[in-house]
Amino acid sequence: MFRKEIRLLDATIRDGGLINNHHFDHAFVRAVYKALSESGVDYMEMGYRNSEKMFSSDEYGLWKFSRDDDILRVIDGIESTKMKIAIMVDVGRVEVEDFKPKSESPVDMVRTATYVKTIDKAIYMANQFDELGYETTINIMAISRDIGSVELDEALRQIEEESHVQVVYVVDSYGALYQETTETLVKHFKGILKTKEIGFHGHNHIQLALCNTIEAIIHNVNYLDGTVYGIGRAAGNCPIELLLGFLKNPKYDIRPVLDLISKQFIPLRDKIEWGYIIPYAITGIMNEHPRAAMALRKTDKKDNYREFYESLSSPYMD
Amino acid sequence: MFRKEIRLLDATIRDGGLINNHHFDHAFVRAVYKALSESGVDYMEMGYRNSEKMFSSDEYGLWKFSRDDDILRVIDGIESTKMKIAIMVDVGRVEVEDFKPKSESPVDMVRTATYVKTIDKAIYMANQFDELGYETTINIMAISRDIGSVELDEALRQIEEESHVQVVYVVDSYGALYQETTETLVKHFKGILKTKEIGFHGHNHIQLALCNTIEAIIHNVNYLDGTVYGIGRAAGNCPIELLLGFLKNPKYDIRPVLDLISKQFIPLRDKIEWGYIIPYAITGIMNEHPRAAMALRKTDKKDNYREFYESLSSPYMD
Repeated sequence: MFRKEIRLLDATIRDGGLINNHHFDHAFVRAVYKALSESGVDYMEMGYRNSEKMFSSDEYGLWKFSRDDDILRVIDGIESTKMKIAIMVDVGRVEVEDFKPKSESPVDMVRTATYVKTIDKAIYMANQFDELGYETTINIMAISRDIGSVELDEALRQIEEESHVQVVYVVDSYGALYQETTETLVKHFKGILKTKEIGFHGHNHIQLALCNTIEAIIHNVNYLDGTVYGIGRAAGNCPIELLLGFLKNPKYDIRPVLDLISKQFIPLRDKIEWGYIIPYAITGIMNEHPRAAMALRKTDKKDNYREFYESLSSPYMD
Repeated sequence: MFRKEIRLLDATIRDGGLINNHHFDHAFVRAVYKALSESGVDYMEMGYRNSEKMFSSDEYGLWKFSRDDDILRVIDGIESTKMKIAIMVDVGRVEVEDFKPKSESPVDMVRTATYVKTIDKAIYMANQFDELGYETTINIMAISRDIGSVELDEALRQIEEESHVQVVYVVDSYGALYQETTETLVKHFKGILKTKEIGFHGHNHIQLALCNTIEAIIHNVNYLDGTVYGIGRAAGNCPIELLLGFLKNPKYDIRPVLDLISKQFIPLRDKIEWGYIIPYAITGIMNEHPRAAMALRKTDKKDNYREFYESLSSPYMD
């Protein structure tokens, strides 16, 4: 599958940070940056930017804030590379004062994550980042709950008419989509968002993150998210090494990412958990947020799958 | 996705046996049988039947042979259940003398595994099992190497004209298919095999086993293989729990399989290895048999992914 318009964005540090409260040290992030840039990946998302007034830097690691200075320290001296740098913001958790103009920052792209119901605020924020000179996107989370909804239609029309973002992402936060629902959503987005590119961010709860990403590619989605070894909250994301293997664009080279997995991610996986784990599969099957499964995994009932399934499937029965 | 014609076949003991030389004890196989039958799975494949003249029962476990007596011992006393019993044979590794007539055996279905090039022998064998009264299938392995081949066309025409099998399976032995190639193959099979049902057996090397199985369902394939927790050679198979979760037929119940995974498969996974492991992903990306990756995993270079990738991608360069 070779299409020159395709752009790969790696969300390793950002989505992986949801497992460990964003406590990756500079050396680790630097190793990821180096490997991804050598692999020809187009964007690396360094983390979230959150307001330091709202979140404590005692509790959270560096990549909850993704300060320009920390990004500069990570990339310093690494022979570059066309790879651009993205960061993510959540609606209501950051202020425009937390951003310098693009000309004074190492950041190229700001992605605004939102639910359908907060789309007005997301558009307002994204337009501010646009005015500062950044590439901008809006990423609509928990999309599997909004298939066919009137609210989604309205949100997409607003984005098309009121926002300056370049890309709008379908985000399968619950890992509940399969190829037919992905096709439906992507075509629906493209039908309304005539002037925008579409992006896809999959989750792997029922092992369909790559599947849905390929389905998105088939239907002309050009912005694709992945993470190294699939790291990410709960079941994790689409493994970027599989995307690199699938896409036939000669600008990509899978080998630096293979090295990175050998050296950094195999040891890391012994310390923090993500991947195909049954409680996450259950929340995916149920089209639920994985938070109940994440809580379960911290208890001594972490492998009591039947009880967990029954607690979700019969929430009102005692 | 509810279609009453769909039949689920569990290949846990058969494909899983390729990891441990078929050394599952009676108690384990019995636990699997009990859970699957409670879950409403339609067929359980107990193992391979190979000639005891050709293979040593010192070297291989019971399920390399799947004798009627061993099957009877496993199922004895378990309240039944509509679940049928299948076994698999390989071309040239068994003789018709190794089978009693169906009326004297606990086996319901005999599946003959073959490559395209040995299709004449497979048809000859399968017709013999048909004469003995068994349900029969032909399973065409390594199919990702035969997309669009003249030999495949000829093989399918022969099966349609000369064999009495009920089902013909697309078997993605290398785990190299994705949804578009699956669709192409399945439609091609259905175009020639007018009087047969089509089956699909996926492998999970690039995390697309469930994806391709769903794609097969979408294109009217009714016989679907899975295994508990995805157990199987190399990266393993389509997890049957995900199929049970995806299919909306009320005759299926995921919960007994969830219990089985908790109690038997989580401990087993610490002893034998399958799943998303980078060298298997690499052979899947390359459309190669996983044997080189299986050999690598037994060496101290098992996590040296770059070198393995380069050895496969440049086999003629020194």
